[in-house]
Amino acid sequence: MSYNLLKGKKGIIFGALDEKSIAWRTALRCHEEGAQLVLSNAPVALRMGQINKLAEAVNAPVIGADVTNMDDLKKLFEETMKHFSGGIDFILHSIGMSVNMRKNKGYTELDYSFNQKTLDISAVSLHRILRTAWDMDALNEHASVIALTYIAAQRVFPDYSEMADAKALMEGITRSFGYHYALKKKVRINTVSQSPTRTTAGSGVKGFDGFITYAEKMSPLGNATSDQCADYCVTLFSDLTRMVTMQNLFHDGGFSFTGVTEAVINQMEK
Amino acid sequence: MSYNLLKGKKGIIFGALDEKSIAWRTALRCHEEGAQLVLSNAPVALRMGQINKLAEAVNAPVIGADVTNMDDLKKLFEETMKHFSGGIDFILHSIGMSVNMRKNKGYTELDYSFNQKTLDISAVSLHRILRTAWDMDALNEHASVIALTYIAAQRVFPDYSEMADAKALMEGITRSFGYHYALKKKVRINTVSQSPTRTTAGSGVKGFDGFITYAEKMSPLGNATSDQCADYCVTLFSDLTRMVTMQNLFHDGGFSFTGVTEAVINQMEK
Amino acid sequence: MSYNLLKGKKGIIFGALDEKSIAWRTALRCHEEGAQLVLSNAPVALRMGQINKLAEAVNAPVIGADVTNMDDLKKLFEETMKHFSGGIDFILHSIGMSVNMRKNKGYTELDYSFNQKTLDISAVSLHRILRTAWDMDALNEHASVIALTYIAAQRVFPDYSEMADAKALMEGITRSFGYHYALKKKVRINTVSQSPTRTTAGSGVKGFDGFITYAEKMSPLGNATSDQCADYCVTLFSDLTRMVTMQNLFHDGGFSFTGVTEAVINQMEK
Amino acid sequence: MSYNLLKGKKGIIFGALDEKSIAWRTALRCHEEGAQLVLSNAPVALRMGQINKLAEAVNAPVIGADVTNMDDLKKLFEETMKHFSGGIDFILHSIGMSVNMRKNKGYTELDYSFNQKTLDISAVSLHRILRTAWDMDALNEHASVIALTYIAAQRVFPDYSEMADAKALMEGITRSFGYHYALKKKVRINTVSQSPTRTTAGSGVKGFDGFITYAEKMSPLGNATSDQCADYCVTLFSDLTRMVTMQNLFHDGGFSFTGVTEAVINQMEK
Repeated sequence: MSYNLLKGKKGIIFGALDEKSIAWRTALRCHEEGAQLVLSNAPVALRMGQINKLAEAVNAPVIGADVTNMDDLKKLFEETMKHFSGGIDFILHSIGMSVNMRKNKGYTELDYSFNQKTLDISAVSLHRILRTAWDMDALNEHASVIALTYIAAQRVFPDYSEMADAKALMEGITRSFGYHYALKKKVRINTVSQSPTRTTAGSGVKGFDGFITYAEKMSPLGNATSDQCADYCVTLFSDLTRMVTMQNLFHDGGFSFTGVTEAVINQMEK
Repeated sequence: MSYNLLKGKKGIIFGALDEKSIAWRTALRCHEEGAQLVLSNAPVALRMGQINKLAEAVNAPVIGADVTNMDDLKKLFEETMKHFSGGIDFILHSIGMSVNMRKNKGYTELDYSFNQKTLDISAVSLHRILRTAWDMDALNEHASVIALTYIAAQRVFPDYSEMADAKALMEGITRSFGYHYALKKKVRINTVSQSPTRTTAGSGVKGFDGFITYAEKMSPLGNATSDQCADYCVTLFSDLTRMVTMQNLFHDGGFSFTGVTEAVINQMEK
Repeated sequence: MSYNLLKGKKGIIFGALDEKSIAWRTALRCHEEGAQLVLSNAPVALRMGQINKLAEAVNAPVIGADVTNMDDLKKLFEETMKHFSGGIDFILHSIGMSVNMRKNKGYTELDYSFNQKTLDISAVSLHRILRTAWDMDALNEHASVIALTYIAAQRVFPDYSEMADAKALMEGITRSFGYHYALKKKVRINTVSQSPTRTTAGSGVKGFDGFITYAEKMSPLGNATSDQCADYCVTLFSDLTRMVTMQNLFHDGGFSFTGVTEAVINQMEK
Repeated sequence: MSYNLLKGKKGIIFGALDEKSIAWRTALRCHEEGAQLVLSNAPVALRMGQINKLAEAVNAPVIGADVTNMDDLKKLFEETMKHFSGGIDFILHSIGMSVNMRKNKGYTELDYSFNQKTLDISAVSLHRILRTAWDMDALNEHASVIALTYIAAQRVFPDYSEMADAKALMEGITRSFGYHYALKKKVRINTVSQSPTRTTAGSGVKGFDGFITYAEKMSPLGNATSDQCADYCVTLFSDLTRMVTMQNLFHDGGFSFTGVTEAVINQMEK
């Protein structure tokens, strides 16, 4: 079903790995709603993933870019603007990777050079993308940028480890750059803080199963799915939300404002 | 322009006084997006306002109700369900009135019986409406309820006086009832925290002009208008935002996360 | 042990019912730290409680007052100032009562006249107390006011019912009156959001046992005790915290910023 | 005046540059309250500053350490524990430096290698310090750690530039490490978010004068001074606040919860 909410709009989707990815589902929904797309991911992810399948489905070119490399980003934006014959209306940043978690290093035993890499890939990358766009004047007036985040940026979820700090940094960048880009070109920048989601990336987090069950029991509407997240992103990319900026928007079935539920209390009494 | 986002949906709009009202603009936009409506307001407001003009434009009946009166509310919901031949998909609560402010009583000199009335009209009314719907099972699954609020619920704006406390109470009711109604019927309940807006109600606040100028200078995107607020409400009533609940959503051009702007600093140096 | 942190200071403690009360423990600690006290509670609580035992221990008069009655409050402040031969340096507001909970009426079936009483006793009472002090100029410069609250004001704990809304209102009053009294006389007003505590009042909440266990497992330092809360209040009444105002201060072993713990996840997997 | 609040306690103070530094004032107050101290700063700051004057006043050794160097930190903790003949009870982290600001590079033109250095010095340093203590088991049970921060971590103050993001990251680290250290040894870790303060570091921020005036007008109690911040830190290092952890504590005269003041509105109308 389509409302044509994004008819005529042009966007870049970062981070579609496979069909479970939120970025993948969002690309499909944006396409349904009439948008033209460019897909981007890290060169290594392009090799591992099945992004060409998505590219075909949404009729979009795939342009690889290491988001920690300014030359790559410049090339990506140049090719994108050439492809669109003009500026960009929206961007989805769905990028995150914890090097320490991959190496099984817990929060109190971080390797700091890995940590620096985690922060660069997962958080500073948002600044790098926006700054590339800024320098090239690549975003159209009223463009909308969304970065996906997680509530671990506000409260501790111990297995989320250094990624929590990275998300806190990324949310800071969202506000800071959001201020400047609003003044310059009425661009809005927000984060969407999504329920834990069974993506290929999410599943890598230790204790993920116990946690997703907990989140389900703690969310009055249950956990939000990837497809529902895609729907929400569509509204935020549309012209109907032009005055929403610098916000962290929880898309989580009410988890964020629920202190406890009867379901959890019952479990506690077992 | 219409996306048909609310095609087939049925809603009640509370609080349209005249064409500057956010509720008025929202009714118009909901109608454009394909919704069927019932309009409601306090009997006294019906007499003073021009709601029949709106009723004609959106082809909706007007049903008066004192929101502090459970019999009125019951009658309103009965007639509404009869009119719709079924349940309700969305509700806009745009109701607020400070009796003390009307009587020029400042925050440190409140009359407590006026204050009790203010809280009842502006905040407890949301509970009364939801509870009436609950008892009559009047809301359809996935129904969406929005109550308009203001950032004075979080931070002090001295001229907003007791209304700030009323909004804090109303946001509490939003979360509390949001929890219960999510479990019962997947209903979502949120507040939208709007920029200061030149409505007939808003203009009554002392020092409103100085304040609206300040808010404009403090919002990187400027103050959001009533029409933009209506657009945002449409997205929240639509099926694209089904997992957003118990949230306070700032629709304010970035005011809420801006500590200061150059425009304000410059003014300080004058 | 005493640091003489409150030497020469004079304060009113509202809400000491029995020796489990936070107010009771705070009165004891304030006395140890050198403060002179007046104890107050509702006439009915005075009859039921054992406050005379406390009065003896801290060498303080007991002055009954219904906090919803302005004449009572006026009389209380007059007698207090007479007893102290001067102004007041600190106040503890530890007052809350949910009439609907007493009558076993759940959140979706509130009696609204009970609810109005709950809001008046538990929240508006803070305004009434401060306003009485304001009118009589009863507070000394730099006086410190603390009202006890609970995190249900921010997130839903379903069994806390209407009391959650009352606390949200009370926190609003804290900020609003905090603004005015800071300007007038450098008075600071804060709420302390305490762990669930096995007081006689707290134990009345349905599901309290399951809940207190959950809170213990969710707090990295465990639940804070009444005595620890009393210690914290002492620091906030002292001259060392003169610039802290309009804040909600969590005293909860880290509960408020913990999303989940291993202890809870483990319980979920049972 | 002394309450002996820190009698017998041993602490490390990072970041005292000159007598305007908050760290300097805090060292003096901790000493007055009976604590034994070790002072530390970066080697370059030791050469520029007048720390020996402070060292004499508080009878403490000065041990240089580059907080981005794990060997330096290990040596610092070894020497400190030797000096104290035992473990450490409190730490003040007052460390921050924006390399881009020094080089006059604005937020939209950051040099990313400078930015990485800024994040490492200003934020990751807190992790490095805590992790060094963790590995050496250097903190006593119930130890208290405070890191100074600024409200730019929550809301945009444009001239604060990348330092805002660094503070957001540091506050994330505070929560994350706070969780682990609470479980391990009942250590509490908090940030204190202080009013803008005329320190040598603070004054380097562009537009600082206009801003400090604005903050003064926006704070019902006025801006908090360095000495008042020192007082507050003393309470947080004391045994009276043992259950406060993972919090961001505003010490700002009410700025954080004030939306606007009459003083600012009046200025707007000029």
